[in-house]
Amino acid sequence: MAKAPQNAISPSREVDYPEWYQQVIKAADLAEVSPVRGCMVIKPWGWGIWENMQKVLDGMFKDTGHENAYFPLFIPMSFLEKEAEHVEGFAKECAVVTHHRLEPGPDGGLVPAGKLDEPLIVRPTSETIIGAMYAKWVQSYRDLPILINQWANVVRWELRTRMFLRTAEFLWQEGHTAHATKEEALEETRKMLEVYADFAENYMAMPVIKGEKPTWERFPGADLTVSIEAMMQDRKALQAGTSHFLGQNFSKAQEIKFQSAEGTEEFAWTTSWGVSTRLVGGLIMTHSDDDGLVIPPRLAPKHIVILPIYRNDEEKAAVLEYCKTLEANLKAQTYDQSPIRVMIDDRDLRGGEKTWYHIKRGVPVRVEVGPRDVASGSVFVGRRDQTPKEKQGIPVDKFVAEIASMLTEMQDNLFEKAKKLREDNTRTIDSVDELKKWFTPKSKNAEKPEIHGGFAMVHCADVPEVEEELKKLKLTARCIPVDAPEEPGKCLFTGQDVTRRMVIAKAY
Amino acid sequence: MAKAPQNAISPSREVDYPEWYQQVIKAADLAEVSPVRGCMVIKPWGWGIWENMQKVLDGMFKDTGHENAYFPLFIPMSFLEKEAEHVEGFAKECAVVTHHRLEPGPDGGLVPAGKLDEPLIVRPTSETIIGAMYAKWVQSYRDLPILINQWANVVRWELRTRMFLRTAEFLWQEGHTAHATKEEALEETRKMLEVYADFAENYMAMPVIKGEKPTWERFPGADLTVSIEAMMQDRKALQAGTSHFLGQNFSKAQEIKFQSAEGTEEFAWTTSWGVSTRLVGGLIMTHSDDDGLVIPPRLAPKHIVILPIYRNDEEKAAVLEYCKTLEANLKAQTYDQSPIRVMIDDRDLRGGEKTWYHIKRGVPVRVEVGPRDVASGSVFVGRRDQTPKEKQGIPVDKFVAEIASMLTEMQDNLFEKAKKLREDNTRTIDSVDELKKWFTPKSKNAEKPEIHGGFAMVHCADVPEVEEELKKLKLTARCIPVDAPEEPGKCLFTGQDVTRRMVIAKAY
Ligand SMILES: [Zn+2]
Ligand SMILES: [Zn+2]
Repeated sequence: MAKAPQNAISPSREVDYPEWYQQVIKAADLAEVSPVRGCMVIKPWGWGIWENMQKVLDGMFKDTGHENAYFPLFIPMSFLEKEAEHVEGFAKECAVVTHHRLEPGPDGGLVPAGKLDEPLIVRPTSETIIGAMYAKWVQSYRDLPILINQWANVVRWELRTRMFLRTAEFLWQEGHTAHATKEEALEETRKMLEVYADFAENYMAMPVIKGEKPTWERFPGADLTVSIEAMMQDRKALQAGTSHFLGQNFSKAQEIKFQSAEGTEEFAWTTSWGVSTRLVGGLIMTHSDDDGLVIPPRLAPKHIVILPIYRNDEEKAAVLEYCKTLEANLKAQTYDQSPIRVMIDDRDLRGGEKTWYHIKRGVPVRVEVGPRDVASGSVFVGRRDQTPKEKQGIPVDKFVAEIASMLTEMQDNLFEKAKKLREDNTRTIDSVDELKKWFTPKSKNAEKPEIHGGFAMVHCADVPEVEEELKKLKLTARCIPVDAPEEPGKCLFTGQDVTRRMVIAKAY
Repeated sequence: MAKAPQNAISPSREVDYPEWYQQVIKAADLAEVSPVRGCMVIKPWGWGIWENMQKVLDGMFKDTGHENAYFPLFIPMSFLEKEAEHVEGFAKECAVVTHHRLEPGPDGGLVPAGKLDEPLIVRPTSETIIGAMYAKWVQSYRDLPILINQWANVVRWELRTRMFLRTAEFLWQEGHTAHATKEEALEETRKMLEVYADFAENYMAMPVIKGEKPTWERFPGADLTVSIEAMMQDRKALQAGTSHFLGQNFSKAQEIKFQSAEGTEEFAWTTSWGVSTRLVGGLIMTHSDDDGLVIPPRLAPKHIVILPIYRNDEEKAAVLEYCKTLEANLKAQTYDQSPIRVMIDDRDLRGGEKTWYHIKRGVPVRVEVGPRDVASGSVFVGRRDQTPKEKQGIPVDKFVAEIASMLTEMQDNLFEKAKKLREDNTRTIDSVDELKKWFTPKSKNAEKPEIHGGFAMVHCADVPEVEEELKKLKLTARCIPVDAPEEPGKCLFTGQDVTRRMVIAKAY
């Protein structure tokens, strides 16, 4: 009998998806839990992915007319009290600064001292503090629009945390804009949704559904929330980015007023939109396999690792020289409008160990170079979108000439594969029984159900009763897709007439 | 009588330097106070400068082998108790998180709830939390060196704040490295000082003195602190960057241990180094004049602003077309290895108002284009390193062809001018009387003394008595320059033998 193929990550996705996720993060050295409850340490390889995401997104924001700025980490407690829904949504769990000094305590340790007159909240999101500034900056219609983005850390005191997906502190960008008209603010809200979808699909190679959230899934204080939703390999939905039309709710609470061209006093229309380090979690869960991380080339910190192989000093000299020339030739190539990112790993480790190290970290292309390759002017190439054994010898000149198109092909493959997974696991459902059945695992082990379900396209009314019914089934309404055709039907739960189907799924 | 020249900033530097500084920040729209005590809002133009600083520094850190990572915002209180000197230095004034929830209070407002078992400190610097992670990561000499940098926000509860120079929250980078040997850690400490000096002089056009701090000016817990010190236009010193050799102090407190190649257990040698948004304050105070901000071209968010001038729609069409072609041609030029950054300001404002707007913001080059320039194929050019009236007509092709060298020349001019100011105001002093006299203003108005003093090169012993004597004179020891020749002498205050002169100055 043939030996079962061995994989680097245990357990496999099929056996225990949540644990597989943690093991991929560990094996790829992306992040680690910290001594601070709910906070993680993002390690260099994980940071490299986030850094590339930031760079691309920042360019997209600037191309759509936005500028960056920076607002305070702290929000006076009274600010949170101004917008009623907003308080309810965010005041519950947050980090509260109450003192500004530490003094020696009775037992030789330290104790908080210098009590603040008004407690400060570590920002869970910055609508209130940014709004207070906009109220000062906006006087006339000539001061509008304000199109500002901020890259920042925020804190939400989460009880159950998961690396990248839900942590107490996380990193994100938050766009905050103010406009003279409702139409312009709505256009901005939708424009940024398109930017996020473009980024998700074309850089992360992660297909997404753009849609409107039902009322109960809106951002606290928003009149409309749109999002991009992606299917992970366990067929659960991940909300990967949101854009909110805040109407005049915040401008009225914060007095962002302006004199119109006609001389009347008006409240501004505001929006906010954000994506976070959660995207790194989405990237991991979309592409990685049982051998570890897989990174779409456009976001990979390194595209290529060169692995020199030699047995003695004489071989070493020849092999390393060849590798350095190869490195220089690769760096001279352009992929995605930048030079190819390449590294040589010449650490003193066994060959197998070193190869697996880079497979687990998801480097798109591995190039092995030994004395025979030097002699024949070739390289031995392994691609991360193929199995570890599918390596092939290629003349070095051909490899260098074709590397950019190889990376492009890999990027496309990853997107198509993820799209197929979503298509294979999206189903149109028209009865509650069918819905229940599809989202019920067959496995007897309730703790570790097999991967099941997916995206159900269902007629659902936007009413509280539906939220309740879905909650009972442990399902969530993701969104009503904006691109989907009108298809009138009756709500599965209430029988009300609705015009378009909603995406229902289990969710992160 | 000729009219006195009018300037955009009031008061002038000469009349009231501190107030002039605030007014430049306001006129250039760099930053603003926020509703949160001691915290500022960095506005887009100010952020654009910081963003350029970050980009250049980040490249320099990577070129010297460092990687970025991210560590938690919060530090458990007990961590601060571990390194005795460190506690004393940082525990005093910091933001303390004691609760993790807000609940409705008796009067309808909110009150902190959910008391934490252990208070969390908002990081004033991250040696302790990063050290705790390094202790886990380092087992063997093979795990060393660790060369990591973090871009982050930090909080130090300052009583007297000043925009960019001293704020409760500020943004910075903090490098943290661990090494197997003392020599390697010392080399790292000095290498990063060189990186900072390179950046300050070649990008900020701000001449600096690299030197060692006397004991009492060291970072809490460091065995050696080196810094770069710059002279501002009021002749006070600004510490612009520091690099610390922490010896084994932190590794012993945090148990960063490793097995050496010989099998013995050793404590690692660590360093830390940082620069912050304070650099923006240094940039402002080094170059700006009584008309507002002056930005060295290499760090300017925009190198050039094009100002179209027209009186009717017909002129408008021709002028705007000419401006757009000019913009495209300028963007196709390379300066400092990047495309020229150019903008057209076509706002509906009077010409004079618009010109002064950009002078105050420090855009290096202003280009006015009117119908006559279109007809003659020329442009009317104003340089920020010349007076507002020194504008000249230049054929447009010549202007485009020479723009990169014009910017290079401006960058050099700014450096030379700043260096001359420092040289003119640096004095070798050999008696306490002379020292007192030089640092005493002649003005009767003690509140608003005239600009006086500078850098005094003095023989001082590194003993507590000198610190006390300097404090009485309201002077500070900046550093003992590393490049200065040995020059034995007697300490001005104690008579002890010392080998090199120390820089003494009033300081920010
Ligand atoms: Zn509301
Ligand atoms: Zn110590």
